[in-house]
Amino acid sequence: MLNKEYDPDDSLVLHTDLYQINMMYTYFKKGIADRNAVFESYYRTEPFGNGFAVFAGLERVVHYINSLHFTESDLAYLKATEHYDDDFIDYLRNLDFKLNIRSMREGELVFANEPLVQVEGPLAQCQLVETAILNIINFHTLLATKAARIRLAVGDDLIMEFGTRRAQETDAALWGTRAAYIGGFDATSNVRAGKLFGIPTSGTHAHSLIEAFGSEYEAFKAYAETHRDCVFLVDTYDTIRSGVPTAIKVAKEMGDKINFQGVRIDSGDMAYISKRVRKQLDEAGFPNAKIYASNDLDENTITSLKMQGAKIDVWGIGTKYITAYDQPALGAVYKLVAIEGSDGKMRDTLKISSNVIKVSTPGKKQVWRISANTKKKNEGDWVARDTEDPRKLDSLYMFHPEYTYINKVVTDFTARPLLRDIFVAGKQVYDLPDVKEIKRQTAENLDGLWDEYKRSLNPQEYPVDLSQELYDSKVKLIEEIRTKIRERSQE
Amino acid sequence: MLNKEYDPDDSLVLHTDLYQINMMYTYFKKGIADRNAVFESYYRTEPFGNGFAVFAGLERVVHYINSLHFTESDLAYLKATEHYDDDFIDYLRNLDFKLNIRSMREGELVFANEPLVQVEGPLAQCQLVETAILNIINFHTLLATKAARIRLAVGDDLIMEFGTRRAQETDAALWGTRAAYIGGFDATSNVRAGKLFGIPTSGTHAHSLIEAFGSEYEAFKAYAETHRDCVFLVDTYDTIRSGVPTAIKVAKEMGDKINFQGVRIDSGDMAYISKRVRKQLDEAGFPNAKIYASNDLDENTITSLKMQGAKIDVWGIGTKYITAYDQPALGAVYKLVAIEGSDGKMRDTLKISSNVIKVSTPGKKQVWRISANTKKKNEGDWVARDTEDPRKLDSLYMFHPEYTYINKVVTDFTARPLLRDIFVAGKQVYDLPDVKEIKRQTAENLDGLWDEYKRSLNPQEYPVDLSQELYDSKVKLIEEIRTKIRERSQE
Repeated sequence: MLNKEYDPDDSLVLHTDLYQINMMYTYFKKGIADRNAVFESYYRTEPFGNGFAVFAGLERVVHYINSLHFTESDLAYLKATEHYDDDFIDYLRNLDFKLNIRSMREGELVFANEPLVQVEGPLAQCQLVETAILNIINFHTLLATKAARIRLAVGDDLIMEFGTRRAQETDAALWGTRAAYIGGFDATSNVRAGKLFGIPTSGTHAHSLIEAFGSEYEAFKAYAETHRDCVFLVDTYDTIRSGVPTAIKVAKEMGDKINFQGVRIDSGDMAYISKRVRKQLDEAGFPNAKIYASNDLDENTITSLKMQGAKIDVWGIGTKYITAYDQPALGAVYKLVAIEGSDGKMRDTLKISSNVIKVSTPGKKQVWRISANTKKKNEGDWVARDTEDPRKLDSLYMFHPEYTYINKVVTDFTARPLLRDIFVAGKQVYDLPDVKEIKRQTAENLDGLWDEYKRSLNPQEYPVDLSQELYDSKVKLIEEIRTKIRERSQE
Repeated sequence: MLNKEYDPDDSLVLHTDLYQINMMYTYFKKGIADRNAVFESYYRTEPFGNGFAVFAGLERVVHYINSLHFTESDLAYLKATEHYDDDFIDYLRNLDFKLNIRSMREGELVFANEPLVQVEGPLAQCQLVETAILNIINFHTLLATKAARIRLAVGDDLIMEFGTRRAQETDAALWGTRAAYIGGFDATSNVRAGKLFGIPTSGTHAHSLIEAFGSEYEAFKAYAETHRDCVFLVDTYDTIRSGVPTAIKVAKEMGDKINFQGVRIDSGDMAYISKRVRKQLDEAGFPNAKIYASNDLDENTITSLKMQGAKIDVWGIGTKYITAYDQPALGAVYKLVAIEGSDGKMRDTLKISSNVIKVSTPGKKQVWRISANTKKKNEGDWVARDTEDPRKLDSLYMFHPEYTYINKVVTDFTARPLLRDIFVAGKQVYDLPDVKEIKRQTAENLDGLWDEYKRSLNPQEYPVDLSQELYDSKVKLIEEIRTKIRERSQE
């Protein structure tokens, strides 16, 4: 939420790390602020030990980019705290955002070490937007992926997002709910998300209703007399001995006047209790009344409950989803992959590291999703220079970028470019799809992935291969840098 | 951030769970919406296995309460999706918030099972605000507590908050940074937090600066020629062989023209490398240059690095702090503890549960911090009915609420009431202190706590005792409810 109490001009333009602005200052003062640069963001390992991630956050990034503008109070703050020269303050005041941004679409299945968002344009501008872009896509992608894991565990049951009170502040609740919907949830308890995004909302009552009316009977009755759709929360005192019998009594008394959708259980041994409750409901003549469960559930407890034969029809998921409890951060990074030299030519850049996994891949890229025409599933992704086009090739040599002896030749294939133009020279050229369409597309994308990549525990590693050209230039660049370091340390 | 792209009227009034509004509807239709109710929020176990928590979030709650108002588009949305009768929509339109809110102050050390925020007023209004209050205090308190743990591990070294890119969306970054400052951090990289809250900011440059200039020498030199305070990031290629020697070379060339504050290491074996770097800096004549470290640090890795004799002076903390990685949610709940009956009299309420820890304590309460006058530390907290006042007593009988044989009599003591009036009948009566004052108060509060409660692993349990009156009424109410359930199941 914008914080007008603190700053009437509050926006996300200062939602960045100070070092970005300090680097912009050096670039500006050294006359290279407007040199063309290409940054790419990617993560290094799949979250949750999953076999894929569901990309999300683009819509929020688009709104962020469109909103960029330094106000006079932003500039006064920067001048007072960092003592920048006035020419730089003027430069920020007049900053005309000219970025080209290419990105995966929301709902695309993505994998480690392939670019998700590519930002190209004036070096200083690319630097400013790093922090916010990472902040947004890291969280949205993490959550959409968690949602997809839960969807895969649940099968066709209904899933409700109930996590707002445990979310990491209000934005996380709101956008986490949107990511839940994209990844496969059916509805949310968050009313604001319902209004803003048009997501279905769900929720009946809490324990306090029973305590306010003094008894379960009074409370259920009052609720039933004021709402057509009724799900009664039955565990305030004793689910089996008090809650369910009272719910049944009220449902019988109200008859056709209500739509008795079922009962919700929020505590106790879900496997045991749900079977007892199912029996109670069936014997009372309510075989269609559903059992809602909501108590610290995630894909692991759901799988376990299903294996125990728990009779749960609707899953309310809170804390474990909304905070991505078992891995609350995705570590996507944003690396410079190419920069214009003083000669006006673009050269590749690379950050090497003693840690092999942290070595970035140089050059401006495109990601191609390769599917064999004889099958209906994906063969893998082929990451290439953006000047390469596999659609012009009859056969494609695909090999693992570390273990190059793992390789194959693919013929009769379709190649789909995954990075789409979103902004060209600062102008939005991409129409944001409706969240319902993104959700539909996500489900379709999951259908195109072999089950081996979709299992929640120890999935097979999906191939993300480099083109020969990209691989060769990476090896060459690493060698050049190593030589330079050796020479320098011998000086 | 308010989302004007989706809804020009966006506010936090709909940042609630749908069931709250459905319960409000039932209360309204049944004529009990304005009955007086008392809700209290508390959590059941300390986060991170810590011995205490640092309460935070009140300032945000105050702004939230002051902003509450349903707009016409909110009402139209609710009518269209939930089909509420017009009289209820009118009721929401004209809702005049009359809540009394009492709360712990930010920076107060708090403990499991004591009320942190108490909301009293019209039942329906209390219900509406539950979700947002919990959302805010859960996150802020969790993060301030994590920050205090890190501060206790670090001793007097400087700590910088660098987590924005890994935070769970933008609010979490912003408010998590404020909580960091309250809990003991010295500065943040988040520029927006600097502007909004007046928190010191920190940050020099990233790896991209080196890649943009093509070499460490060019990059450090350019940075040094454009900034007075310089911390050089030395691990782009090879910290020992390339980064540090280059930083030293530039520092020597620049001499007094810069303030060479030190070098930052962001990868590799921090214990080993920091000792080598310290030696390099000392031998080059820069004994005052500091070593900054930033690579997935938290209180555990910090403690380990310190035990290994790592030569780190300044700690940059990101992901592990800003997401509270090892426990990303605090589970504070919000329970009805008293409600006005049809006779106009207040009666205590209680949610019982098969899980002993989930049984709430009935009645409107106050929390008293008891300190013996002969010592300078706290004896424990005494939770009593708000009508009780231990300051009128010569001696206080304190006993454990579960293991009642653990007890003591305290004489010559000072009792300080912790819940303060924040809103009275909807009007703010509390002046929000400056965040610097909250930070100072937090440090002072930590000084008042015995070390046994402050150790990060297996701390002693701090006494949170119930008054005899409260204990007796809880036992009596549990018995009454159990009897009712027994009678009902025998019907």
